[in-house]
Amino acid sequence: MTNKSKIINDPVFGFITIPNAFLYDLIQHPYFQRLNRIKQLGVAFFVYPGAQHTRFQHSLGAMYLMNETIKQLRFKGQEISNDEANGLLSAILLHDIGHAPFSHVLENILINGVSHEEITLMLMKKINAAYNGELDIAIKIFNNLYHKKFMHQLVSGQLDMDRLDYLRRDSFFTGVTEGTIGSARIIKMLNVQDDKLVVEAKGIYSIENFLVARRFMYWQVYLHKTSVAAEKLLVKILKRAKALCTNGETLFASPALAYFIRQNVTQETFNTDTDAICNFIALDDSDILSAIKVWAKHPDIILSTLSQAFINRKLFKVKQQDLSANERNKLIDTYVQHFGIERNDASYFFEVEPLGISSTYHRGNDQILIQSSDGSLLDIADASDMLDITILDKKVAKNYFCYYSINR
Amino acid sequence: MTNKSKIINDPVFGFITIPNAFLYDLIQHPYFQRLNRIKQLGVAFFVYPGAQHTRFQHSLGAMYLMNETIKQLRFKGQEISNDEANGLLSAILLHDIGHAPFSHVLENILINGVSHEEITLMLMKKINAAYNGELDIAIKIFNNLYHKKFMHQLVSGQLDMDRLDYLRRDSFFTGVTEGTIGSARIIKMLNVQDDKLVVEAKGIYSIENFLVARRFMYWQVYLHKTSVAAEKLLVKILKRAKALCTNGETLFASPALAYFIRQNVTQETFNTDTDAICNFIALDDSDILSAIKVWAKHPDIILSTLSQAFINRKLFKVKQQDLSANERNKLIDTYVQHFGIERNDASYFFEVEPLGISSTYHRGNDQILIQSSDGSLLDIADASDMLDITILDKKVAKNYFCYYSINR
Amino acid sequence: MTNKSKIINDPVFGFITIPNAFLYDLIQHPYFQRLNRIKQLGVAFFVYPGAQHTRFQHSLGAMYLMNETIKQLRFKGQEISNDEANGLLSAILLHDIGHAPFSHVLENILINGVSHEEITLMLMKKINAAYNGELDIAIKIFNNLYHKKFMHQLVSGQLDMDRLDYLRRDSFFTGVTEGTIGSARIIKMLNVQDDKLVVEAKGIYSIENFLVARRFMYWQVYLHKTSVAAEKLLVKILKRAKALCTNGETLFASPALAYFIRQNVTQETFNTDTDAICNFIALDDSDILSAIKVWAKHPDIILSTLSQAFINRKLFKVKQQDLSANERNKLIDTYVQHFGIERNDASYFFEVEPLGISSTYHRGNDQILIQSSDGSLLDIADASDMLDITILDKKVAKNYFCYYSINR
Amino acid sequence: MTNKSKIINDPVFGFITIPNAFLYDLIQHPYFQRLNRIKQLGVAFFVYPGAQHTRFQHSLGAMYLMNETIKQLRFKGQEISNDEANGLLSAILLHDIGHAPFSHVLENILINGVSHEEITLMLMKKINAAYNGELDIAIKIFNNLYHKKFMHQLVSGQLDMDRLDYLRRDSFFTGVTEGTIGSARIIKMLNVQDDKLVVEAKGIYSIENFLVARRFMYWQVYLHKTSVAAEKLLVKILKRAKALCTNGETLFASPALAYFIRQNVTQETFNTDTDAICNFIALDDSDILSAIKVWAKHPDIILSTLSQAFINRKLFKVKQQDLSANERNKLIDTYVQHFGIERNDASYFFEVEPLGISSTYHRGNDQILIQSSDGSLLDIADASDMLDITILDKKVAKNYFCYYSINR
Repeated sequence: MTNKSKIINDPVFGFITIPNAFLYDLIQHPYFQRLNRIKQLGVAFFVYPGAQHTRFQHSLGAMYLMNETIKQLRFKGQEISNDEANGLLSAILLHDIGHAPFSHVLENILINGVSHEEITLMLMKKINAAYNGELDIAIKIFNNLYHKKFMHQLVSGQLDMDRLDYLRRDSFFTGVTEGTIGSARIIKMLNVQDDKLVVEAKGIYSIENFLVARRFMYWQVYLHKTSVAAEKLLVKILKRAKALCTNGETLFASPALAYFIRQNVTQETFNTDTDAICNFIALDDSDILSAIKVWAKHPDIILSTLSQAFINRKLFKVKQQDLSANERNKLIDTYVQHFGIERNDASYFFEVEPLGISSTYHRGNDQILIQSSDGSLLDIADASDMLDITILDKKVAKNYFCYYSINR
Repeated sequence: MTNKSKIINDPVFGFITIPNAFLYDLIQHPYFQRLNRIKQLGVAFFVYPGAQHTRFQHSLGAMYLMNETIKQLRFKGQEISNDEANGLLSAILLHDIGHAPFSHVLENILINGVSHEEITLMLMKKINAAYNGELDIAIKIFNNLYHKKFMHQLVSGQLDMDRLDYLRRDSFFTGVTEGTIGSARIIKMLNVQDDKLVVEAKGIYSIENFLVARRFMYWQVYLHKTSVAAEKLLVKILKRAKALCTNGETLFASPALAYFIRQNVTQETFNTDTDAICNFIALDDSDILSAIKVWAKHPDIILSTLSQAFINRKLFKVKQQDLSANERNKLIDTYVQHFGIERNDASYFFEVEPLGISSTYHRGNDQILIQSSDGSLLDIADASDMLDITILDKKVAKNYFCYYSINR
Repeated sequence: MTNKSKIINDPVFGFITIPNAFLYDLIQHPYFQRLNRIKQLGVAFFVYPGAQHTRFQHSLGAMYLMNETIKQLRFKGQEISNDEANGLLSAILLHDIGHAPFSHVLENILINGVSHEEITLMLMKKINAAYNGELDIAIKIFNNLYHKKFMHQLVSGQLDMDRLDYLRRDSFFTGVTEGTIGSARIIKMLNVQDDKLVVEAKGIYSIENFLVARRFMYWQVYLHKTSVAAEKLLVKILKRAKALCTNGETLFASPALAYFIRQNVTQETFNTDTDAICNFIALDDSDILSAIKVWAKHPDIILSTLSQAFINRKLFKVKQQDLSANERNKLIDTYVQHFGIERNDASYFFEVEPLGISSTYHRGNDQILIQSSDGSLLDIADASDMLDITILDKKVAKNYFCYYSINR
Repeated sequence: MTNKSKIINDPVFGFITIPNAFLYDLIQHPYFQRLNRIKQLGVAFFVYPGAQHTRFQHSLGAMYLMNETIKQLRFKGQEISNDEANGLLSAILLHDIGHAPFSHVLENILINGVSHEEITLMLMKKINAAYNGELDIAIKIFNNLYHKKFMHQLVSGQLDMDRLDYLRRDSFFTGVTEGTIGSARIIKMLNVQDDKLVVEAKGIYSIENFLVARRFMYWQVYLHKTSVAAEKLLVKILKRAKALCTNGETLFASPALAYFIRQNVTQETFNTDTDAICNFIALDDSDILSAIKVWAKHPDIILSTLSQAFINRKLFKVKQQDLSANERNKLIDTYVQHFGIERNDASYFFEVEPLGISSTYHRGNDQILIQSSDGSLLDIADASDMLDITILDKKVAKNYFCYYSINR
């Protein structure tokens, strides 16, 4: 690795040092480079123009935090072998390679019934095969099959490096400074006890802050109504495109995108068609954007209307409650009349989204545990004066009624 | 004001423009310049070395935020006359001029039964007399005697410019970035309805964040145990100094400090002795520090031990629970034996502090009101999904047992 | 504009207020929305992963700074009418709408002999026609045909709002904090004398800093060798694609991209074919990226090799000096042998780039003038102790030899 | 060190880890704790209210950077033993303990002909004696008597940790963001060749930026005319106080301050009187401030006028050129008449300050050397295209005429 650049300038953490040559190779791998073409926050840039950052940066940031955490845990006496360290670093670096374009937005549209985690796993296994098993531990950790269970918690848990990075990073790029969390302080407070990740007692306020900041970011950014409206619009466009393809139309699309809209891709497809994974890897935000601009001129009034709306930022409007059956019927009438479409197809122009965050924190196997100085462990919900489990675990749901507005 | 510098460089807000010549004169007034010699966070610099910032900067910052708020409210159609604007700006600029050295720490030691707000009012009245009543409105607003009640809320309320500045500023200088609040976003959301300060509905998450960040700063900074220990130590030193003076000893002290430790200063003193206010104005952090260094060599073992401890950062130790009667007796024995002091005087070496924050938010006349788009108002505690009034209003108290440790 | 969002969250400047409904409409215009799909720094993200920010954000930032400047100049007594203010704000907002994909990189590849400024002007005129001449003043200012010459300087000059924004913004997103300039301080120091933009004497150090920071950003970011190597690679890909099209091959491309690679587009094309402008507007980064991924599998060894290199970040290598004729011949031999290509075509795999910045500052009509307190004006090169005009105006050129490395 | 706090929150660098128990003890030493009461930038807070930061924080920051540098150099293969590392860390931590109150301002007023470096050395030797020689290497490095010469360069040279910290820190606390240097980037580029500190070639722009930023900070902050005016005022006050003491007056002063104003303290004093060092250690900003407030009411018109001016921020006015003999005589007349003082004493009210920075960079033994990839070394002045040694080494001097203005 003598000749390889080893330091990456990151506006969030300053400088990120790539720990070793193997990790450098993973970063250079096409599967990872692809993340440079997938925005971390999907279409949130419509609301927060700064939010153009990618999964690539996020994954590097999470790797950086993992490295800091490994140093900290070793300093406190936890044994973490070099192979385990590489496993942790690789697992977190690669944890997002299974993401579809625009991250979460299209997850169930382009591929049915396969989560991005499952695709990540498929891709990790392919890399592993090429690297003679160097990812064995990483895959076990990712999968929660490694015997040291706290390692999985660091990759995927209620206090994992993923969250520690994305909250800070999304806060930084959106300019929503209130979402800032103390990732460095939290890492200084981490420890492991009985194979469980724990937080030293004096870190309790930082954890409270972290939970609240996460909730804040959900409502202020991730579930911002304009952002949700843009997502719904994007989903409708792809649904219409798939419907047209099913009817035999040949829409403009890159080969990779064509693969996913001209058929119904499921787990079965990945199992049986070796092209599936190649096409997935070739697919990113640019295919979608580039196609939508062409579709904006397509003769199908539904596809072109929605595509123009997306490209020119005439997003769906949002009401924070559902319509009555009556109101909805009137709205459908309007679409039918205005566009000359069938009643059935009016649903391309609206959607009720029962939006919500399941819970800010829930007890379960993957607790956040506070370690007092005598070594006893308490669930954060019990240790905190402020946070009440009944509230933290409350599912907040709001109905967002998103619709295309004809008059603007 | 042609020749007067009108812009002040502030590391927190960038540039602060002084709105007009009258405010410039107030800033130049000796009562205000004195704040440059009083640390905003008292002795918190023992824990957070960056926390050397003063009440002077804080007051300028609060004036800046008030100016932004006035612009915002006028933009939304609220009538605020120029005289009222000056009243608001002067009131917030001067709101802290009544602080004793080290801000809150010595409030009840040097002066008995007179709050810093009462002294602020005395001083504002003196300035007002010299300025032919130009502070009339400011004083009414400060006093909550002005007919537009929302103006008092901006100066002193649960969402006032004081808090909006100090949370950001203290977060900035301590390096506790998690305490960052979105002061700019909150100000954009402010409005006035029925003469009450209200927050537009989409600002609700920022308010939740503000309340939680405030609570965070309390535990992480303001009530940090080492900081509390340093405060207790400082209080004990001044109590001992006063006791020795009462016994006729002549301790080294600046004339201003001497005035406050050689007698018991109360409201009565301010009423009857014109020197009281002059001495108060002459008093700041430097008198205390400078005296304690001299006292560190005083023959009285109690005064010198405590003073040395303060100067050389051998602060009180802290336990997070009170001692049993038995343990306490044993501790007293140790002090008596070690220092050769009377049993009575052992209490100079320890203190139980029933520390706590009264509540994060309490309902009452000064509510934080959320304004929905139809104009209806809701208390934040009702509007918020996350915050539960029973928890917000809960008084959290912890007993901190602070004591001098002989062996270190 | 009652119902329109008026505040935009910007991570660099905090909040950007959209001054009025007309500017809001310009921002919503498809020509402007397109900038959201064109990266400000082209392919610099290969070196600085944070540099995903777009021309859209930059243009908003420049508008923000223009607004601050207008306030400042009016405060100092300069008369700027509301129409002129709108002209300034519109001109700076739209100054970049003529950019091709990846900003400067493809400027002379896709379109020959037409600068992005000329295209901007074409597009501004089209908008102006639709808006009944509301952009008349903006166009005159942009064109330097407005009688108040200082206004053009604010839009395009050695100290314009464009530079004040991009230096701060590029510094922010790359994480190269040393490039930070004091845009707020510089704006506070601006004034107008004899219809020329001038800087008050005490701003001289900020101007020195600005000139040096700009030069720093050139070498550290804009002309970073890896970034230049990526640009050369991209240029070669498009040249090859055009060559193949000329030979009758039908490459995958969106209709808009196809328009620009299947023919030689010049000023003449824009004059005679109304489709030219439509296709330009439909073209952005996504068309290029999406096509290159397809080209990576094309049978033409040159196109596919270069495209794979770009997509998978196997960028050209760079030597900081040209090769000797001999070395170059040997290199060509290697390519010919390795790829089985014609000798002529070997040049697709390397390029000498006589890289340089013309000058940091040059005297001329558009000087940076320092205004002393007695009103006399001095060129910055004379006023500064530190900057020497012979050095500032020096053209620094370095030969970068960029080439495809077969062995890696 | 099990029980000792090992992490310090620093707003500039985030978290500073104290490397080991010995360094922790040094930080706890009274000589070092005293720095918490000495402002880094003397009286610059009159111009930049944020500049209340102390030598304490600066020294911790410099230690942090030294630790990063040691890691970096070891990573590049330089052998640095643990004892040497401790020597470097101790030397930089303690390098400022010899500073008088208000840092540089009073250096030649309170003590004649003894630099703060000489006092630092005296104090380091005293600590060393108490610690059985644990500071031997540190003292040799500080003194430039250690055989590895590059180590002295890291403590005191043109690119030392002192400068790398203070430029960033002063920039941070004043809010003069343009002064930001890339300390992390510079440290990544450091290496050692032939026992000389060198900078890798690609770091050249960062070094240019560092030199220019330093010069910028000089003119914008350190030599800001208002700051210089405040310094002159402070110097005059202490001169007058000493003169009065010489005449037998007993001014209020803490014992430590009294020691330095009632006699002429020189190197001889330190050699012969063991109290000298004790009094020095007991002296800090608070003694000066506290005394000046008392002196403001002293019957001597000169002392009280100047002291009031200082306390109430009626600082000297500044003209950027000297007066003519005639103008000066007229000014003296005014003072004589207004204050009823002797002609001789008028000089307490004004001062010509031939202000200047010797040079931004000068060649000499302590060059900044740029290391090209072939290992050859070039002086930065030769390696840089931009910086011209004739300019860098130019001494810029400006005469500041500072004077007390009677009418304000």
